Amino acid sequence: MSTIFSKIIAGEIPSYKVYEDEWVFAFLDINPLSPGHTLVIPKEEAATVDKLSDESAAAIGRVLPRVSRAILAATGATHFNILQNNGAPAHQAVFHVHFHIIPKMDDGQGLGIAWKPGNLSREAAAGLVHKIAENL
Amino acid sequence: MSTIFSKIIAGEIPSYKVYEDEWVFAFLDINPLSPGHTLVIPKEEAATVDKLSDESAAAIGRVLPRVSRAILAATGATHFNILQNNGAPAHQAVFHVHFHIIPKMDDGQGLGIAWKPGNLSREAAAGLVHKIAENL
Repeated sequence: MSTIFSKIIAGEIPSYKVYEDEWVFAFLDINPLSPGHTLVIPKEEAATVDKLSDESAAAIGRVLPRVSRAILAATGATHFNILQNNGAPAHQAVFHVHFHIIPKMDDGQGLGIAWKPGNLSREAAAGLVHKIAENL
Repeated sequence: MSTIFSKIIAGEIPSYKVYEDEWVFAFLDINPLSPGHTLVIPKEEAATVDKLSDESAAAIGRVLPRVSRAILAATGATHFNILQNNGAPAHQAVFHVHFHIIPKMDDGQGLGIAWKPGNLSREAAAGLVHKIAENL
């Protein structure tokens, strides 16, 4: 289940590394949506977040504030999105978990979001809460 | 800096809660992009991820796999996005950190993403890596 990201972590493929610790590796996206667009990935090989260990997921969570602050300071951006995609229909292209940190610039550069919300009925909500609780 | 989310955590405003621990609270979005659309939030009051403590951020990261698996099992979805917005221009509406878990359904329901990538020049990359490292 190795992808190009495992080779990047191993240093077999060069990258613009911005952060590394025992669990986590972060590097610049070479096709950025905006300046400073960074990928934060676990060293653990997991295709999607639902397959990732709690330890790796916690380690990524822990560094998101720190890496985000450094990106904001470096780019001058004051707004940003964090996006993590699971599955090709959800826009995932490399099947190794990655969290995008994407500065949103004043000129519009950054992540484009299309938001078409519905309404949650009381009945649907009750059913979902029950089913999710069963599966936790 | 309190928002409606602090009242939800305190139980002063009702919510469709799906998960809670010492650090984290999760509940159904009442204006879902797809069935099972859930918000995972820290109990800590922080407007944006760059202002969040490492401990809260790690606690959120730790539960993302587990809550995601439960949502997939409950909804039958097999693909999903995790999105976290910081700042109104980045589509943030409630100024208390929240991670959206958004199932992507076969009929297209879910998060819409507009992706306009550029190319990262070697020169720009070197400058960014240096500036980010300085600020880590």
